[in-house]
Amino acid sequence: MVRPIVFCSDYGLSDDFVGVCHGAIARIAPEVRVIDLTHGIQAMNVVHGASVLNSSTRYMPRHCVYLAVVDPGVGSARRAVAVQAGSGALLVGPDNGLLSMAWEALGGASAAVDIASDEVILQPRSATFDGRDVFAPAAAHLAMGRDLSFLGPEVAVDSLVRLDVPRPVVADGQVRCAVLAIDRFGNVQLSATAEHLEKSGLAGRDELVLDTDEAGAVMVRPARTFSDVGAGQVALIVDSSGWLSAVMNGGNLAEALRVAPVVLSRVG
Amino acid sequence: MVRPIVFCSDYGLSDDFVGVCHGAIARIAPEVRVIDLTHGIQAMNVVHGASVLNSSTRYMPRHCVYLAVVDPGVGSARRAVAVQAGSGALLVGPDNGLLSMAWEALGGASAAVDIASDEVILQPRSATFDGRDVFAPAAAHLAMGRDLSFLGPEVAVDSLVRLDVPRPVVADGQVRCAVLAIDRFGNVQLSATAEHLEKSGLAGRDELVLDTDEAGAVMVRPARTFSDVGAGQVALIVDSSGWLSAVMNGGNLAEALRVAPVVLSRVG
Amino acid sequence: MVRPIVFCSDYGLSDDFVGVCHGAIARIAPEVRVIDLTHGIQAMNVVHGASVLNSSTRYMPRHCVYLAVVDPGVGSARRAVAVQAGSGALLVGPDNGLLSMAWEALGGASAAVDIASDEVILQPRSATFDGRDVFAPAAAHLAMGRDLSFLGPEVAVDSLVRLDVPRPVVADGQVRCAVLAIDRFGNVQLSATAEHLEKSGLAGRDELVLDTDEAGAVMVRPARTFSDVGAGQVALIVDSSGWLSAVMNGGNLAEALRVAPVVLSRVG
Repeated sequence: MVRPIVFCSDYGLSDDFVGVCHGAIARIAPEVRVIDLTHGIQAMNVVHGASVLNSSTRYMPRHCVYLAVVDPGVGSARRAVAVQAGSGALLVGPDNGLLSMAWEALGGASAAVDIASDEVILQPRSATFDGRDVFAPAAAHLAMGRDLSFLGPEVAVDSLVRLDVPRPVVADGQVRCAVLAIDRFGNVQLSATAEHLEKSGLAGRDELVLDTDEAGAVMVRPARTFSDVGAGQVALIVDSSGWLSAVMNGGNLAEALRVAPVVLSRVG
Repeated sequence: MVRPIVFCSDYGLSDDFVGVCHGAIARIAPEVRVIDLTHGIQAMNVVHGASVLNSSTRYMPRHCVYLAVVDPGVGSARRAVAVQAGSGALLVGPDNGLLSMAWEALGGASAAVDIASDEVILQPRSATFDGRDVFAPAAAHLAMGRDLSFLGPEVAVDSLVRLDVPRPVVADGQVRCAVLAIDRFGNVQLSATAEHLEKSGLAGRDELVLDTDEAGAVMVRPARTFSDVGAGQVALIVDSSGWLSAVMNGGNLAEALRVAPVVLSRVG
Repeated sequence: MVRPIVFCSDYGLSDDFVGVCHGAIARIAPEVRVIDLTHGIQAMNVVHGASVLNSSTRYMPRHCVYLAVVDPGVGSARRAVAVQAGSGALLVGPDNGLLSMAWEALGGASAAVDIASDEVILQPRSATFDGRDVFAPAAAHLAMGRDLSFLGPEVAVDSLVRLDVPRPVVADGQVRCAVLAIDRFGNVQLSATAEHLEKSGLAGRDELVLDTDEAGAVMVRPARTFSDVGAGQVALIVDSSGWLSAVMNGGNLAEALRVAPVVLSRVG
């Protein structure tokens, strides 16, 4: 079975990192389709990458190979791994937790290998670009239908590094959470969901206070979408990935609020 | 017939919006080629998107499906539509005029449907991301050869929203027009053509005055290309889309002139 | 033989230049895969483009067509050329030296033509966008298996413009070189290699001084990778393209050092 590759990284598109990885894939797997999920993960931010990868899984081809690289430990002793998920999807990347939320969403990790084979790793191997020399070739071999075992020796699934989005602290009338991401439109994605609002007793209110360290308190209106509040007003919506997001109708909220821990509390 | 998809949006490439739409397409149409026209349309600027889509039509595969999303009204009652053009091309996007200049360039709209089918729209449907949940799947089904009618009920072509680039006001010795776009190189694209210069009696002059609200008057030389004027001088050329553009040889004109209405008038 | 196309330019991704070229390719070569190496070459910087193209050749499909556009002379009399390399790869672009380092890496130029055929060049031809009207169609025809001679008349290989990265000046205890590029992470790529360090007698030292016009002298430690030095410290590594690069572990070195000539000298 030939599989598509879904490629996600913090490489950006201003340099040739992504393009060189595409070349390395095409040498091994000339017919394989590569979907660039995004290369705009905040540099070195493994949690951000893990969260984006996780949210994407509902929309990617079911038997794809996820190739993810956010890798502050490149050149160190951290392992390079490939993981089989319960859904049949495969994941390739550094063993730093980047893949862990996605494999959970895909039915859990059922097998894993340490990418170590000389038939896979390009030589000479650079100390700073495992995306090109290790991960892209590994993903390409899997996309061509080769077994996990082609890449290297098995590792215990329990030994893989895992991470999760920091959980909000829910109190009566308050949800303390973090900013997960800020997008191009200035929308501020929070590490909390409608369920947390419910538990805090804040669900159903017309107005809430969004309290930030940097910008102080801002009034927000729970709403379904941008246009449910007036121009320049701030809505609190459930975004397209299921997170609460604070958004300004027709404006850029993030220019007022900076990425930092935020607190939701009731009005008055 | 399998058709390529031409995808244009204001999503940018720093987030995963575009990649997730690619995934949604690949689930339905794994073999279909997607050409990313650009995702750098100015956020929420429907006229900019319509103009770029229009200019592209001469260069895209003839039987492609245009998938365009610049959608300030997402989540509101605006319709999601698919349109058949006289040329055989298909267009998918919000019914806000974004597609209208392109379908005119492609032989006019000959049929249209409201995208409403439960077999097309992803569930749960987010209130903020119709690109993923409505437009990408609709385009993918059309790319696989399904009929317009698969997407939803027919709508009258006359009921579709249309828009056009604001027309310049031409007087004797003056063309009053707007800035359509500024590109990476700082070139300033105007909403006027050589025909407007002709009508104003300005054609054939060696020098013109480009008058802006922000930067005052600048001398420009009608020319064929950048290098026809000296380094640091400003040329007025017909750009690759047929619009008049003011460009600085070896420099970034837009850093001096800001996006705003401009007036062309004769010297002296 | 159908060949993949490797596309590299300074067009950026905020405008539709790249997407329109993809369309022009797809009209002629609907089945051909296009790998976007990068479109982030510094605007008009031919040496930067030539260097990136050169470094990529080890990783791209062996029989690909390189399509490269960094073209300050568009609209002037500079030739548009296609070149056959000894390796079997083909290269298309302006005759301004952009392709020359790559064809040397690919076994030398064995034949070349001036792209001039009316069957290749799109009409009307814009004076400012040969990427769309000349180079993309030429690359597409070659990708479909057509001969070089289909594009236009032969030109002498000796007449092609060549350029090279400026060579460092090596003295005893000093290497004077230039900054080749700065990447997204703020890593500063220098126009010198480990061989130059060797010749200068600086190899094997624990510490070196990186002297810049703008930021004065900075202490750097020769290392294998980022994480071999402490957080916030500066390492001098051999980067993934074989150049010496100055990098800050966990930081952005380029925000302190600006692109400018730099001097490496021994400590004390």
